[in-house]
This record gives sequence, C-alpha cells and structure tokens, in this order.
Amino acid sequence: MGLDHAATKPHEQLARHLDSRMNAVNGLIRERMASRHAPRIPEVTAHLVEAGGKRLRPMLTLASADLCGYGGVFDVHLAATVEFIHTATLLHDDVVDESRQRRGRPTANLLWDNKSSVLVGDYLFARAFQLMVEPGNLRVLDILSNAAAVIAEGEVLQLSAARDLATDESVYLQVVRGKTAALFSAATEVGGVIAEAPEAHIKALFEYGDALGIAFQIVDDLLDYQGDSSATGKNVGDDFRERKLTLPVIKAIALADDEERTFWSRTIEKGRQEDGDLDRALDLLKKHGALEATRADALEWAAKARAAIETLPDHPVRKMLADIADYVVARVN
Amino acid sequence: MGLDHAATKPHEQLARHLDSRMNAVNGLIRERMASRHAPRIPEVTAHLVEAGGKRLRPMLTLASADLCGYGGVFDVHLAATVEFIHTATLLHDDVVDESRQRRGRPTANLLWDNKSSVLVGDYLFARAFQLMVEPGNLRVLDILSNAAAVIAEGEVLQLSAARDLATDESVYLQVVRGKTAALFSAATEVGGVIAEAPEAHIKALFEYGDALGIAFQIVDDLLDYQGDSSATGKNVGDDFRERKLTLPVIKAIALADDEERTFWSRTIEKGRQEDGDLDRALDLLKKHGALEATRADALEWAAKARAAIETLPDHPVRKMLADIADYVVARVN
Repeated sequence: MGLDHAATKPHEQLARHLDSRMNAVNGLIRERMASRHAPRIPEVTAHLVEAGGKRLRPMLTLASADLCGYGGVFDVHLAATVEFIHTATLLHDDVVDESRQRRGRPTANLLWDNKSSVLVGDYLFARAFQLMVEPGNLRVLDILSNAAAVIAEGEVLQLSAARDLATDESVYLQVVRGKTAALFSAATEVGGVIAEAPEAHIKALFEYGDALGIAFQIVDDLLDYQGDSSATGKNVGDDFRERKLTLPVIKAIALADDEERTFWSRTIEKGRQEDGDLDRALDLLKKHGALEATRADALEWAAKARAAIETLPDHPVRKMLADIADYVVARVN
Repeated sequence: MGLDHAATKPHEQLARHLDSRMNAVNGLIRERMASRHAPRIPEVTAHLVEAGGKRLRPMLTLASADLCGYGGVFDVHLAATVEFIHTATLLHDDVVDESRQRRGRPTANLLWDNKSSVLVGDYLFARAFQLMVEPGNLRVLDILSNAAAVIAEGEVLQLSAARDLATDESVYLQVVRGKTAALFSAATEVGGVIAEAPEAHIKALFEYGDALGIAFQIVDDLLDYQGDSSATGKNVGDDFRERKLTLPVIKAIALADDEERTFWSRTIEKGRQEDGDLDRALDLLKKHGALEATRADALEWAAKARAAIETLPDHPVRKMLADIADYVVARVN
C-alpha cells in the first residue's frame, strides 16, 4: 500500500463521491460530541475522532442510501450514529484490552484514564441513540439497537472464548459477527431502510455489510501476524501476547500435534509466555498453512460481499462498494 | 429503619399496589438479561439484579403511568428499560470508583473483572435501547435517550469536579441531576407520556422525579458521613477516602478558615490522607453544621417533590408517591 496508490484507493473514491454528505456527517459528529458541562468529553472524543480513521462505516450508510435513491437528510444522522457507536466501542475495547496504541497514537485510556474512557464511551453511546431517534423511523431504531446488543454480546463472548483452546471456527465467526460485522451490516441495512428500498435490496445490503465486516475482521486478525506495523499501527503478535484466539491460531491448533498443543496451551491458555514464543507461534502458523488458509477465508467473504450486491440496480456506487470489498482484502494480498 | 417498620415502608406499599405489574417487569428483566451466546452476561447481571435493590426507578414509571390512567402493556417495557439503564450505570460506576462492595455484596468488577463489568454494562445499555423502542413512541425514545446522555455527561463532569476544591453547590447540583435525577425524572415523565396524560401532568411528574432524585442523592451523600454501614451497605467515609467532593464537604469548605482549607486541599485535592483524617473531616463537618445544612437541603427537595404532584388528580398512587418523597429523606431523620 505505497503512497502511489493513494489516489485510486476505493474508499477514497467513495469518499470523493460522497464528499458533501461526509462533510455534513463530520459536522454533525463535531457538533454532537460537544458537551456543555463536561469539557473532558470533547477532549477525549476529538483525540479519537480526529485520529484519521477511514470513516468506512458511516460511508457505508451514506453509500447504501445513495444507491437506493435516498433524497432526504437523515442518512447523515444515521451515518453519524454508526460512527459514534464505533467510537464508543473503540474506547471501551481499549480499556478491556489494556491497549496502549490505536491508529498509531496513544490510546485515550493511556492519555487520560480508564474512567474517562468508560464514561465518555457511555456518553457517545447515548449520543448515538439520540441521533438515531431523530429520523423517527422505528425500523431503523430496531436495527441499530439490535446491532448494539449483538456487538456487546460478541465482546463478552470474546472474553470467555479468548484463551480457551476449544474455541473453534464457528465460535470465532460468532464473535466476529458480533464485534465487527453487526455494525457493518446495520450500517448498510439502515441506508436501504431509510431510502424505503424494496425488501430484496435491503436484504442484499445487509448481506453485503455482513460479509464485508467478516472479511474486514479476518484480515485484521491476519495482519496481526503478518502485517507491517508501520502500515497497521499495531505491533506484530499483539493478539498472541494478549492471548487472543483468532482465526490463524484456531486453524493451526486444529492441525497441531501433541507437542504443539502443549505449546499453545502454555502460551495462550496459561499465558506463560517466554522469549522466542512468538517466533515459534509464527513457525507453527507457517507449518500448517494457517495464514494462507485464513487469507483464503477472507477472500471468500469478500467475494460473498461482492456477490450480494450484484442483484442491485446498476449504479456507480454499486461498483464502488464492490471495489471496497476487494480493497479490504487487498491489504493482505 | 428497624425491621418493625418494614410493613409500612412507602416503597413497599407502592410495590404491593403495583404487584402484578412489577412481576411482569421482573419477568421481562430476567428474559432480556439472558444471552444465547455469552453465559457470562446473565451471571454478572443476575448477581446485581438479584441483589435486592428496591426497584424504585421502575416502580416510579409504573406508578406514573397508573396515576395517569394508563391501561396498556408498555409501562412494563419502559420500567424494565429504566432498571436496565440503572443497572448498566452501576456496573460502570463500580469500575470507575474501583468499588469493592455494592448493596452489601462484593461488586461484579471484584467477582469477575473490570472487563466483564464494562462489556456487560454495554450489553444492558443496548438491551435498554431495544426495550424502549418496542412501544413505538418517539417522544419516549427522545426522553430516555436524552436521559442516557445527561447521565453520562454528569458522570464525566463528576470525574473532573471531584477533587477540585472550586466545586460549588451549583456544580454539585449539575452532577447530581446528571448521575441520579435524570433517570428518576425520565422514569416518571415517560409514565405520563405513555399514558398520553395532559402536558401539565407530564410536567408535574417530571418535576417530581427531578426533585425526588436530587433529594435521594443528597441523602446518599449525607449517609456516607453519618450512616450506619449495616443499613447502607457502605462504609462511613468512602466518599472522603475516594476524594469525592459531595455536598457536606462543599458546605464545610465554603466556611473553612485557612488552616481548614489546607486540610481539605491535602486530603481531597492532593489525596495525601493519613490516619485520623476522616475523624478530623467529621469534626469539621460538625463544626460548620454541614451535615445539618445538607439534611435541610434534602428535606427541601423532598418537599418540592411532594408539591410538584399536588396539582395532579386525586388518586391513591399520588399519596404513595408523596410518601416515597418523605421516605427517601426519612433515612436521615
């Protein structure tokens, strides 16, 4: 991902296409993350919101509404809602994971404290719910409040599934659907709903978001083992050190011999890690082709995402969304 | 509050009057705190929900709806919503305060961990939003989502106002409105709204809840300095040790001489507490009549609560609500 490709990145194409709507979203985000009484709130949120995330989720909402011919104003509210839920989740995740770095910058829990991250996250959740009420669309409220519950459930499931060698690919998928795909699919689905698109189109948008979110998270988990930390803003092996059972390790454990299982049990379940263990883990992932197999899964989910929207009417945004699916997995090509 | 008074406690009278509705609320709470995928969730919530809180907030919603002649089914959903928001807030508060005891039992963050408390709290918030969507009443959604934002804002404000000797009674009131009164007033207001009561009645219910919540929190802060730990489930002086600037201390600081200000600055602002400091603090509260003045404020707010509903139509529940206001402050009589 050299800088020479920058001009043609699909999410940047989409951002250009949605430029004026995204400006409105960013304005609304700035307006609503303010607090008259508690100046700590905009400090913490600005740190995260201005840190230059790609705003992929709100763009998915705007794009889905646009693709379905929406001409109203509330796509902006729903896009901001989705970004607020995402940001709140990040603040709480960093507390739960005891993270020190996010998007290449120190985390809020490190710069302020865990208390601020917990409470400012709660504030953003509440602001998200205020925003989602404004369009006055009960189906949208249903989708987004369900997504919030599925996200939290996925995070709790991850707590117990992590460090448990019995975690298999189906549990992993459930966690990923919760922690990542639920917000992607809600983001695209509400775009269709607010545009009053035909049910089949709404379903297609949901399935696109679901598959895209899964592909996105699998790639994220893969990059943790084979990424370039200057590009990802994460250190290789963070998940291993945090004893998270992600897809590459789940695949390697499924093929492990007794001695290898002992290794995974000691390092992941019991957390007794020593110098050289990460190298050993990387060797085992290679030995069993776990990284290649994980990459193949990501490509498959990206293909499902593309296929889901093939039935939608022809529209420039449809092509852009298909390109986004390719782009998400291109990070590991 | 000896056991001999138990039969006549106003909240128990109200509970008896609302018996079948409260059973429905408790059933809905049990149903919705379940999680198909993450068994950790019901474990944590059951620990807190079953710990025998008085369920005062959901009763306020049921009582307000009943008082306004509501005959539908959604008072139960809104009452459960209010209890879920409250429970989520407690889980996050205990993380923020690093509490070890709640309602006389070890806190969830102690029994499980902070991670579980943060994420299960998020789950309950999301469940609350799902529940509040079900009645399909946009005004109710507006009130409850605003309350959630005001609660979080109050908690963040408390973070910065705590330990700052410049915190005065107006800042204290703002914090209290956020952390406590916002949910009380939303609980009563939505009861009136769902019953489609006249605007003047809805306003009266809001004002009752607001004043009751403020009286409730002032009493709580007072009991922290003069309570009986076997009755409150808290240890005397917890707020002092946690360096929280509550009303008794704010009143004492307003009347402090230079030497006393130095004491408060060292113990609260700088947190350098030594043996005997709590006794000194209690002496200063007594010297300046801070506990009596705080008690007088609580009584005044309880009187405002009673006055607010005097204009409502005659109804057995109206008397019970007035008695609740007396009962809340009777804890410090």
